Amino acid sequence: MKARVTVMLRDGVLDPQGEAVRHALGALGFAGVEGVRQGKLIEIDLAATDPATAEAEVRAMCEKLLANTVIERFTVEIL
Amino acid sequence: MKARVTVMLRDGVLDPQGEAVRHALGALGFAGVEGVRQGKLIEIDLAATDPATAEAEVRAMCEKLLANTVIERFTVEIL
Repeated sequence: MKARVTVMLRDGVLDPQGEAVRHALGALGFAGVEGVRQGKLIEIDLAATDPATAEAEVRAMCEKLLANTVIERFTVEIL
Repeated sequence: MKARVTVMLRDGVLDPQGEAVRHALGALGFAGVEGVRQGKLIEIDLAATDPATAEAEVRAMCEKLLANTVIERFTVEIL
């Protein structure tokens, strides 16, 4: 079973990486880029076969390791 | 208009970051994690109002800056 986790900085938290990308896009001539936020995408292959169990397990992984929930929000999708 | 870009290493390309996450999850007691791949998620706010134009523009950004297409594949989604 596969899980897809996205981790993004919360709104209001400064995102220097996204800001650097926005600046670089402008320098390359892409006008009309109003904002960029950059986050992480993590794909996990799981041995679990029950979707509910898998989701609970992946959420625990996010809380413990994959996301810093003080400044980041995450989503979990079971595929 | 908003675009969501995902950039992942191609299959077969070594992913040391994903491997480190897999190892850390195992050390934290999460059994049954068979593989982890880590990529980037980039959200872009665009001034463009036409979805087709926006998608073409974002694909050009990926080819030029956001992804290294030799070792990475990307997807573009217009929201």
